[in-house]
Amino acid sequence: MITKPLNLGQGFPDYEPPSRFSNFLAEVASEKNLYSHQYTRGLGHIRLVKALSKLYSSLINREIDPLNEILITVGAYEALFCTIQSTIEVGDEAIIIEPFFDCYEPLVRIAGGTPRFIALKNTKPNSSVSHSSDWKLDPEELASLFNSKTKLIIVNTPHNPLGKVFDYDELTMIADLAKKHNVLVISDEVYEWMVYEPAKHIRMATLPDMWERTITIGSAGKTFSLTGWKLGWAYGPANLIKNLVVVHQTAIYTCATPVQEATARGFEHEISALDTPESYFQNLCKELRPKMLFLSNVLKETGFKPIIPDGGYFIISNWTSLENKIDLSLETDKYKDLQFTKWLSKNVKLQSIPFSIFFSENSKPSAENYMRLCFFKKDETLKEAEKILTTWTSKLS
Amino acid sequence: MITKPLNLGQGFPDYEPPSRFSNFLAEVASEKNLYSHQYTRGLGHIRLVKALSKLYSSLINREIDPLNEILITVGAYEALFCTIQSTIEVGDEAIIIEPFFDCYEPLVRIAGGTPRFIALKNTKPNSSVSHSSDWKLDPEELASLFNSKTKLIIVNTPHNPLGKVFDYDELTMIADLAKKHNVLVISDEVYEWMVYEPAKHIRMATLPDMWERTITIGSAGKTFSLTGWKLGWAYGPANLIKNLVVVHQTAIYTCATPVQEATARGFEHEISALDTPESYFQNLCKELRPKMLFLSNVLKETGFKPIIPDGGYFIISNWTSLENKIDLSLETDKYKDLQFTKWLSKNVKLQSIPFSIFFSENSKPSAENYMRLCFFKKDETLKEAEKILTTWTSKLS
Repeated sequence: MITKPLNLGQGFPDYEPPSRFSNFLAEVASEKNLYSHQYTRGLGHIRLVKALSKLYSSLINREIDPLNEILITVGAYEALFCTIQSTIEVGDEAIIIEPFFDCYEPLVRIAGGTPRFIALKNTKPNSSVSHSSDWKLDPEELASLFNSKTKLIIVNTPHNPLGKVFDYDELTMIADLAKKHNVLVISDEVYEWMVYEPAKHIRMATLPDMWERTITIGSAGKTFSLTGWKLGWAYGPANLIKNLVVVHQTAIYTCATPVQEATARGFEHEISALDTPESYFQNLCKELRPKMLFLSNVLKETGFKPIIPDGGYFIISNWTSLENKIDLSLETDKYKDLQFTKWLSKNVKLQSIPFSIFFSENSKPSAENYMRLCFFKKDETLKEAEKILTTWTSKLS
Repeated sequence: MITKPLNLGQGFPDYEPPSRFSNFLAEVASEKNLYSHQYTRGLGHIRLVKALSKLYSSLINREIDPLNEILITVGAYEALFCTIQSTIEVGDEAIIIEPFFDCYEPLVRIAGGTPRFIALKNTKPNSSVSHSSDWKLDPEELASLFNSKTKLIIVNTPHNPLGKVFDYDELTMIADLAKKHNVLVISDEVYEWMVYEPAKHIRMATLPDMWERTITIGSAGKTFSLTGWKLGWAYGPANLIKNLVVVHQTAIYTCATPVQEATARGFEHEISALDTPESYFQNLCKELRPKMLFLSNVLKETGFKPIIPDGGYFIISNWTSLENKIDLSLETDKYKDLQFTKWLSKNVKLQSIPFSIFFSENSKPSAENYMRLCFFKKDETLKEAEKILTTWTSKLS
């Protein structure tokens, strides 16, 4: 019998979503309301943009115009596509921080632009416990990438896959360069509600004079743990949003109405529950933090060296202390992390994601010592992972 | 008090959608099935592509590979975007038949292509009753548009806004030119289930040697009268579909899972009901045909000259016999049909769409005598339209 490997690779929960939110979709679908099933406004369903405006206006302490400063998209993915397509022309440059969500690079290239990469570097490589906050940008290196061709920089905080939550000083350093060189900042904040204390999510658009040059991207799929809803948004100043709208109206025109209506109800519920025990946003962190700590400990106890994340639902882990105990010679992939994750899936029946896929071609060698695991899984799945890793490593000599 | 005009402009029903299909979405949303709310396959949810393969394989009498010959998109709109973006490069030409669905032209231009237009012409301008089948392409004129730069031609049958259903000879004439010049045919068939006997919908992909060069586009929104679901598809040979996939995966990656699952169930129901009184596809025509005939008669009796459609849910109508009875001098639009439809909305409280918006800039003057009305409306809405038009025209001298 062939056993399927335990999947800690995929970036979504392996248990039921909160029924509160999926019930909103059931409610919308079963209501006798004609307009829930017909075309809605191209820039976004009115009830949804109003809910988003209400929530984010209070979070960024500035009134967001629901009609002109928000665009609803097919996931955060389409928001990235619209922003990059409308900003980058042939010959332009875009700064991408490594590791990065894998669509950033092709989006820049397809628009005709050249990506310029800068890696987050582990500033404490020898410390016994590694944290995502140890991974930092070199300010001088970043400054050297800006030039007259630079049109945008993409900042992802909380960060996938590292789980790093950029602090105020780090964001200020990036913001100052963006202002100095008149560059757009794409702030990909899809993991905004998954931040583990004492870390705090800071929105780029709240920094001095940054509203004017920031497109902030969010995701209903990540916010409500319903990735299959494929609904996202971008908010920012009207003069920037209108450029995204041109691309959106060319490619898609408008997003699914029932999903937008259900998402609006989800946000209305959350806005009213924000500081109560009912708040999903707060409960999600409470739910995820013990899972993160559990998996981190399992990794430590079985010989891995995990990087403890401050946000998101992934753990990056160094696996190289196990390297001399196993035989990767039959694995043919170019990079060692691909060899190791494939070997692990086949021989130990645990599925993970190689770290190098989050790097540009030239930087992949620097990522070979790591793999990514997702901890947004049932407790029993995580316990099964513990059993698998413990059983396996106890047999190693 | 300001009365809102009666809206026969918008192209969707003003009454509740069939609850059978919206109930499928409610069912999917309320089920405790994790995978209905998380990411699904990028090219399309397996259950949906299998249902589409089953349906269309029997309709085009050829086995369609659900995994490689179908792409699920955000409405027919994104399918058009993916097809045109992946086919047209700077300097290429695309043939567009006028009148046309308004996104065709910008999609070609944004891809860097040049649209070449050819108009359907009324071959019986003096007959007392006008039919959409009287509007034809001139074969010599069409042949003259093809050259070495021509990459594609877009055929829309049943046709929006004319309601023309292209017959076998007309499609063969287009197909022969496409084969001769090695050109891709985009067959936009979103109104495929709305065809009024004795007219018959013929699928371009069924013509000899046309499968190899045809991308056929369909729409769940049009098929199930739920335009707000924004789900569509393209089917065609794997070597062409894979080009669309590149664009799709850049812009969107994957479509909403619950909507795809619900649409799959809708198709499964329809496949099993295809030749029974339960068939929505057949009932829809039975429902729409009397509405079409009613509105055509109202138009005739109130002095308009409608073009009786063979398909779709629009009627194009000549309004010029009323021109000398009204005063358009206060209307400032460039084209007379814009003047008339605005005047009608303000003074008679009936909303329609000017015909010239479906034409390229140079051809707009040829469209000035017409307007478009949608008859997919409640019977009471259509009776209200009768009352409005009768009351108004009876007062004209």
